[in-house]
Amino acid sequence: MSNLSNNIKLVDSLTARVGPAGEVQDILDWLIERNRQVRVDIDLVDFDRLSGWHFNSDSGDLEHVSGKFFGIRGVEIRTDGFPLLREHWTQPIIDQPEVGILGIICRMIDGVLCFLMQAKIEPGNLNCVQLSPTLQATRSNYMQVHKGKAPRCLEYFRNAGSHQIWLDQLQSEQGGRFLHKRNRNIVIEVEEEIASHPDFVWVTLGQLKALMRYDNVVNMDTRTVLSGLGWDDRDILPVRDRIHTARGHAMLRSLEKKNGGEAINRTLFWLSELKSRYSLNTRLIPLNQVKEWDIRADEIVRPDGRFFRVIGARVLIENREVASWDQPLIQPMQDGLCALIMKQIDGVMHFLVQAKLECGNLDVVELAPTVQCLTGSFRSGLPHFLDYVLNARREQIIFDINQSEEGGRFYHEQNRNLLLEAEKDFPKNEIPDNFRWVALRELREFLRFNNYLNIQLRSLLAAIDLFNL
Amino acid sequence: MSNLSNNIKLVDSLTARVGPAGEVQDILDWLIERNRQVRVDIDLVDFDRLSGWHFNSDSGDLEHVSGKFFGIRGVEIRTDGFPLLREHWTQPIIDQPEVGILGIICRMIDGVLCFLMQAKIEPGNLNCVQLSPTLQATRSNYMQVHKGKAPRCLEYFRNAGSHQIWLDQLQSEQGGRFLHKRNRNIVIEVEEEIASHPDFVWVTLGQLKALMRYDNVVNMDTRTVLSGLGWDDRDILPVRDRIHTARGHAMLRSLEKKNGGEAINRTLFWLSELKSRYSLNTRLIPLNQVKEWDIRADEIVRPDGRFFRVIGARVLIENREVASWDQPLIQPMQDGLCALIMKQIDGVMHFLVQAKLECGNLDVVELAPTVQCLTGSFRSGLPHFLDYVLNARREQIIFDINQSEEGGRFYHEQNRNLLLEAEKDFPKNEIPDNFRWVALRELREFLRFNNYLNIQLRSLLAAIDLFNL
Repeated sequence: MSNLSNNIKLVDSLTARVGPAGEVQDILDWLIERNRQVRVDIDLVDFDRLSGWHFNSDSGDLEHVSGKFFGIRGVEIRTDGFPLLREHWTQPIIDQPEVGILGIICRMIDGVLCFLMQAKIEPGNLNCVQLSPTLQATRSNYMQVHKGKAPRCLEYFRNAGSHQIWLDQLQSEQGGRFLHKRNRNIVIEVEEEIASHPDFVWVTLGQLKALMRYDNVVNMDTRTVLSGLGWDDRDILPVRDRIHTARGHAMLRSLEKKNGGEAINRTLFWLSELKSRYSLNTRLIPLNQVKEWDIRADEIVRPDGRFFRVIGARVLIENREVASWDQPLIQPMQDGLCALIMKQIDGVMHFLVQAKLECGNLDVVELAPTVQCLTGSFRSGLPHFLDYVLNARREQIIFDINQSEEGGRFYHEQNRNLLLEAEKDFPKNEIPDNFRWVALRELREFLRFNNYLNIQLRSLLAAIDLFNL
Repeated sequence: MSNLSNNIKLVDSLTARVGPAGEVQDILDWLIERNRQVRVDIDLVDFDRLSGWHFNSDSGDLEHVSGKFFGIRGVEIRTDGFPLLREHWTQPIIDQPEVGILGIICRMIDGVLCFLMQAKIEPGNLNCVQLSPTLQATRSNYMQVHKGKAPRCLEYFRNAGSHQIWLDQLQSEQGGRFLHKRNRNIVIEVEEEIASHPDFVWVTLGQLKALMRYDNVVNMDTRTVLSGLGWDDRDILPVRDRIHTARGHAMLRSLEKKNGGEAINRTLFWLSELKSRYSLNTRLIPLNQVKEWDIRADEIVRPDGRFFRVIGARVLIENREVASWDQPLIQPMQDGLCALIMKQIDGVMHFLVQAKLECGNLDVVELAPTVQCLTGSFRSGLPHFLDYVLNARREQIIFDINQSEEGGRFYHEQNRNLLLEAEKDFPKNEIPDNFRWVALRELREFLRFNNYLNIQLRSLLAAIDLFNL
């Protein structure tokens, strides 16, 4: 399978607004129906009532009695002078050493590439059911270590030949919440028919992009996988005539640029310098040694109410079957904002990204949106460009949507995802050292390698639809 | 400064065998003379006699009293089923969180690109003085945190504009010895004349490659920096006619290949799968909790005599000035072997690399030479392809040289660096899962990003000279 034929398939699936599942509204209706048929009850309970979970008597870490799943532990962070950050702090963090698997199956149906999506319930979701990858599994599930019941469609991934693999990347999760956590993002193409199932639906890429213009419909796991699907510079040419907007053409021009390699080198050098200039030393400590956080009967929280709190949840899910379990969840103290500013420079659309240091990062900094913050952190040291983003005129805004974080760990968390075009007089050169204008081609190149773009930036990129800019 | 002009400069400096310093033999003579003028005495002393160093009373870690420099600590490693590795072990490791700076200045002299090399003494060097980068500095030196005496030529690096930067990468050190240690590899071009100094010499890239055919002349730090200097596919064309050998042409063809991106994607997918299949969990533990190692008065060593030992060294260096200090050093228990097999596949030269898990790796595995082992580890589970390498016929061997590891940490350590071409009947497909044939273009692409090629593989690649294959 060549790049070229893959890209033509992708482009066809972007332009095809009608896939086998019908119109976008049909998919939304189907999701609403799935939501109607399920009841999700979350009771917030004290930690000592969480079945299967306990505070480790030595460390105070909140752990599952089996030692599996994940734990809430402490981390101590030392860094040195990174803009807007303290040099030393401690905080709780989710420690989940296993790589998660996020897999999407695609298949040509009636000449259109379609993606097999799952209507999946997660306890923390604001709206119960969202469009999720074909497969979400832990590494143990995936490897079938415990010989338990195999997740649906697992065998397609385990048996995929290398010619079926469109994508196989390890990408990071939220560096402020997880320690070094990554998921394996996989897309495979399957030729044979796959048995239908009431929780699964075939959707085109164009439909997925359209669905991402609705609040909290496409889940975070889907968005991160989709962000890795792109075209490369050689193969994009046949699409050119199908792009309808000036913005779309300005983005395409970056993919066509012949000396993109040089720009990428410059960005890599800039990153090397930042990763050398600033150190990040994060080490696990016992949760009971974390300072500035209170461990209470029903929450782990900062007295000043900032950032997030850890809560205990009793989950009851009723649809065709009844499932119930207890687990800790992370609840943000405010909704967040992830905003990306773009601007044409020399006829090519560029994005203003920042190199952001977060305590759980594997490699000091990752590229992040122009603005990434909780609304509450507006108080202390205003993030750069926040004012500009909050005061943007309506005509500048490409999209402005609430997107959910992963509902398996985060309780009712949504972030405002905002893409906007800067005005002509927006400064091109006077930007802080840890900010940089990069073209789409560079971002696509960085996406091929691990741990360069953070999950918030990937979420924004996934929603960009060259045909509807 | 464009890639193209950089590459033409590089090619000229490769072909120019006579740089301002004269013939290769002149440089060797100059090094011998530098060696003659210096006296290095290393006394091995008990740890309790090491001035400035002590065992931490709690952890047993061997540390400097200032808390600076580096420490010998313990690590506990858990992994799961990686070929030829145990699933759990503990060992001593060098913990040196600071990024080191390895910088080389280049400059056009009489129309030929030259590199400013330093004849540098390191306590652990077998032969006192080796050709080293213009600048070797710690991050604190580099940032001038302590306002001490600036290392020579530092200001050129600190003041370099982005147009002067040829290379700026963070690359790993030995994953079996260091925990997550990296160095910043920088090459900058300077236009102005630089004051001469008796310990510095201008050398062309061709001369450096020729010098790498001598045992222990070009130090590890120089080799890792040079490995990052490459040509990219577009710009290599003008060189074609200057390549004299069939092997050189077979390597060039991989750089010219138009669909190299697809091959790189496949290799990235293969790496993602391995990094998901195998986990690596390395955590610092107190040195006094390390099992299977004895902490004696004069050494930290395994009773079975495997791997390495930690020793205490009193260093006395006399040349124009006298310098003396104490420090721990790591001494290998056997010499090592790093061998890379190459083979033409479809007219393109490919290298057989392995994804190797070492406990100090930042990201589970890095690409390593076909064979990388201490001679002592031959006993337990013969490494793959070792027999083939040790029994290669003379005509297969491109080079076979002893190269030193970094003499600032390692005592009299050299590894046999061997590049050989496989015979026609060498298996192309029947190789273990964690081995893969990759072309030069792929390796060059991976080198641009951090932590993909380990230091042993980079050392071998640095010594490849397309004009003398």
